[in-house]
Amino acid sequence: MQENTISTAHNPKIKKLLALQQKAAERRKNGVFVVEGQRELQHCINAGLEIDSIFFCPEILGNNEDVLETLFQTARCYAVTAGVYNKIAYRGGTEGIIAEVKQKRLLLNDLQLKENPLLIILESVEKPGNLGAVLRSADAAGADAVIVCDPLTDIYNPNLIRSSIGAVFTVPCVACSTEECITFLKTKGIQILTAQLQDSNIYYDTDMTCSTAIVMGTEATGLTDAWRQAATRHIRIPMLGQLDSLNVSVSAAILMFEAVRQRQL
Amino acid sequence: MQENTISTAHNPKIKKLLALQQKAAERRKNGVFVVEGQRELQHCINAGLEIDSIFFCPEILGNNEDVLETLFQTARCYAVTAGVYNKIAYRGGTEGIIAEVKQKRLLLNDLQLKENPLLIILESVEKPGNLGAVLRSADAAGADAVIVCDPLTDIYNPNLIRSSIGAVFTVPCVACSTEECITFLKTKGIQILTAQLQDSNIYYDTDMTCSTAIVMGTEATGLTDAWRQAATRHIRIPMLGQLDSLNVSVSAAILMFEAVRQRQL
Repeated sequence: MQENTISTAHNPKIKKLLALQQKAAERRKNGVFVVEGQRELQHCINAGLEIDSIFFCPEILGNNEDVLETLFQTARCYAVTAGVYNKIAYRGGTEGIIAEVKQKRLLLNDLQLKENPLLIILESVEKPGNLGAVLRSADAAGADAVIVCDPLTDIYNPNLIRSSIGAVFTVPCVACSTEECITFLKTKGIQILTAQLQDSNIYYDTDMTCSTAIVMGTEATGLTDAWRQAATRHIRIPMLGQLDSLNVSVSAAILMFEAVRQRQL
Repeated sequence: MQENTISTAHNPKIKKLLALQQKAAERRKNGVFVVEGQRELQHCINAGLEIDSIFFCPEILGNNEDVLETLFQTARCYAVTAGVYNKIAYRGGTEGIIAEVKQKRLLLNDLQLKENPLLIILESVEKPGNLGAVLRSADAAGADAVIVCDPLTDIYNPNLIRSSIGAVFTVPCVACSTEECITFLKTKGIQILTAQLQDSNIYYDTDMTCSTAIVMGTEATGLTDAWRQAATRHIRIPMLGQLDSLNVSVSAAILMFEAVRQRQL
């Protein structure tokens, strides 16, 4: 099943892989994205995503080559030299496996919500790494989904996948417009808690045991009026020091885990 | 007061500044470190740190040159061209001011603790950015100090200062050995809560209203035996998803803000 080993980064398949890593437009055009690492790929498969091609380095994988067995059946596999692998891997020689995976974009109506859902909503994303970090915390908190209200968000950005350590595959993530999202929440009867400093209650004095969406703006500009007006309640994290803001992924985690605490009392 | 404008990065003062940014050894040898940005410098001055030299770009500062007035008296000021400024600035041309600041290393016995202190302890630091993020959250939670149990930690790393957005100056930060730290906590009668999965209670079922130190290990290896044995209680954050860990700065924030919640009930 294994073809000849690819030994140069000038190989067209390697060039395509690098372009997919570097350019959102290439990912969109081809409908695939790049995933590195055995654990991450396992999360992909568990999430029902389809692996298109696998590039692996026998020198690095060593005795772990059997991890490929389960992937072999559907994907095309290419062995590469350590030199080529180090050019395509962002973690250096620690994993030995990189794949092109087919995209599967979720819509709001695809979400399967629990009876008392907990949703995390980001109005927009300043840094892909921040969204990845929010997804990682959302996995831990057992949140139903993370929704980004910017239809152009590329959830297949490599920095996002990396910082999520795989949570982008374990937590449903939807990109849509603010209007779509507000309509969705109102229709489902989910309370909207907006994180903002003005006219707000301390978060731990706010009931989160019912269906809840926690909505966060950007660190730079906060939330837009559309969200402030759609809110059921405004909530804030008390700032007891000299600085005036928290990292958005840290704020999201504090708020999510307060919901966890209240729901498990 | 303003000397001739520096127009080349070959200027010895600029070379020294770049070396201080890039090399921990240079910072140690010279006893100074580099701070960029008006807000950050204001935090430095508020913290009683002494500014040694200031490099500013008149083209970028524009009408804000009066921010220098308060700094002029003690520091040597050098004007630089925009070309030079962009070589020394990591944020590009947004701030217009960079300074060399004298180091002031804190020891455990320098800490001035409140009656019911809240301390955050990291056994070691994998990434300087993580410590910066912990400091930022510690400022917001009103923690008394952050202690790193690795005497070689360079709290003047530029990535740390950047990710703390100034909290490295607003929150006392001490680097010491694990043994020193445990002795300090026991002497002061501060309860030790170690974050670990094994043999632990859920964090929100644990009393944090008394004097408390929250101790975190690394994401990769967790806590050493010395801490596990010194612990008053072991605590954990419930992991409700498929992944098995949270980012250390996110975990620290969740635990700190539970202490805030319990203390403000």
